Amino acid sequence: MSEFAAYLEACQTRINGFLLSQLDTPQPRLERLYAAMRYSVVNGGKRVRPLLCYASCEALGGDPAAANPAAGAVELVHAYSLIHDDLPAMDDDDLRRGQPTCHRAFDEATAILAGDGLQALAFDWLSTLGDWQPATRLQMVQTLARAAGPQGMVGGQAIDLGAVGEKIDLATLELMHRHKTGALISASIQLGALASERASADQLQTLAVYADCIGLAFQVQDDILDIESETSVLGKRQGADIARDKPTYPALLGLEGAHRLADQLRDQAVAALQPLGAAAVHLQQLADYIVQRRF
Amino acid sequence: MSEFAAYLEACQTRINGFLLSQLDTPQPRLERLYAAMRYSVVNGGKRVRPLLCYASCEALGGDPAAANPAAGAVELVHAYSLIHDDLPAMDDDDLRRGQPTCHRAFDEATAILAGDGLQALAFDWLSTLGDWQPATRLQMVQTLARAAGPQGMVGGQAIDLGAVGEKIDLATLELMHRHKTGALISASIQLGALASERASADQLQTLAVYADCIGLAFQVQDDILDIESETSVLGKRQGADIARDKPTYPALLGLEGAHRLADQLRDQAVAALQPLGAAAVHLQQLADYIVQRRF
Repeated sequence: MSEFAAYLEACQTRINGFLLSQLDTPQPRLERLYAAMRYSVVNGGKRVRPLLCYASCEALGGDPAAANPAAGAVELVHAYSLIHDDLPAMDDDDLRRGQPTCHRAFDEATAILAGDGLQALAFDWLSTLGDWQPATRLQMVQTLARAAGPQGMVGGQAIDLGAVGEKIDLATLELMHRHKTGALISASIQLGALASERASADQLQTLAVYADCIGLAFQVQDDILDIESETSVLGKRQGADIARDKPTYPALLGLEGAHRLADQLRDQAVAALQPLGAAAVHLQQLADYIVQRRF
Repeated sequence: MSEFAAYLEACQTRINGFLLSQLDTPQPRLERLYAAMRYSVVNGGKRVRPLLCYASCEALGGDPAAANPAAGAVELVHAYSLIHDDLPAMDDDDLRRGQPTCHRAFDEATAILAGDGLQALAFDWLSTLGDWQPATRLQMVQTLARAAGPQGMVGGQAIDLGAVGEKIDLATLELMHRHKTGALISASIQLGALASERASADQLQTLAVYADCIGLAFQVQDDILDIESETSVLGKRQGADIARDKPTYPALLGLEGAHRLADQLRDQAVAALQPLGAAAVHLQQLADYIVQRRF
């Protein structure tokens, strides 16, 4: 196993352990709700957002284990968004990472509530767990709330809904993705930096440039995988975007053009890290990982 | 118009103005999402939670107008919960306050997203608007997140879902309501107190007792109104709880017993306010209002 593969595995083990440790059912009548939340959170995801959060904390010399509540909070928001995106009224998906989606495994009402509950828990964790100054926590809450809300992820999903079947241009596609996935990926990186409690304004700016590039690269690669990967590897229906006539980068740029864009964005992201020196090695490797992953 | 009626109207005007001032569409492609959020927030509700928030701030000598972001945040959480509760997979309601519910006026996907967006905005407002110390804001975020989440409102909704058709006892009914409506009502009062930035631990405890009683009284009266009020006054289908075989206080205690319980809880709430003296007069009047309202 390469050093990086071992690093990924260690981080995934850390976040999985942390998430599970915080999701015990507090009272018997809440069992079904908590079971649905655990089901959706502990499901073998790649944990890209926690990985970026840890690596960003490390890049500023912080202890990544101390970033657990921040990494956990962004993952809760991500998990809630997947539950709601999969609902019949939204993407109507039966499979997620090769398993029945939450509303299939439980029921629709429980899935709606599990998503709602996970979002609230994210802010609960940021404001109560961990060992940070009030001002640091507050910046984390501000960052996550803005990234998750109507000016971030939820707004991106709304733009996406409104664009199905419409012929949109590259600028609109980028606008959509900067909201839909870019905002939360950026927040993961900002929260990791804040968790170190030693982020300067310059460093936050450096990381914001990295985050912008890597967030978009992530989405371009997602669109590529919808075409190139098989359903069994992807864990969701391959070709789902095309079937729904969703706008994608390959549709606008061709498959080769999309690959080229992903590589360019990766290169820009890595270049931006220069001021952080050797401490940013894992952020650098994650940039490669994001455009090379097959699922 | 009585002094209290004028007070209610002034507070409602203040919160309605504040809410609307913060919900402008930031970019054309987000118009439908923001329209759905505005539709659900600015709809002639009674604003019980903001009223309690303002009155609690006043009771500690604070300026209620300075509590706007806190009052607004609890109302956003309340509004989001109504949107999601009304969804076909939940209560499947067509009417809310005499108007089409959000998913009827827009569509289901937009309603899900509007609710999700409002929840995030609540934490955005608490952490960015207003003029409070970081530690105060943080306590507000903690309080609201806990009250809104799986150990609060969302948990209550889950208990409710699990109890439909089941014969539950008074203790379980109370458990459900303490989560479902009590938690957010308590949070409104706590946030108002925090917004004054002069709440002692004793005062917070006094207000917590008041909040506990008034939160339950509110729900008992809600159950009574489901039987006594006409659909045209109530703004939703009268008898909806009975039609769904939902457990209610009148079903367990009889109509007269439910009235008696509401009055007892009101008396306990008012008695708890004694240490706060004359400054708590509006909290006192709100306790009467809550058990005397006809809708």
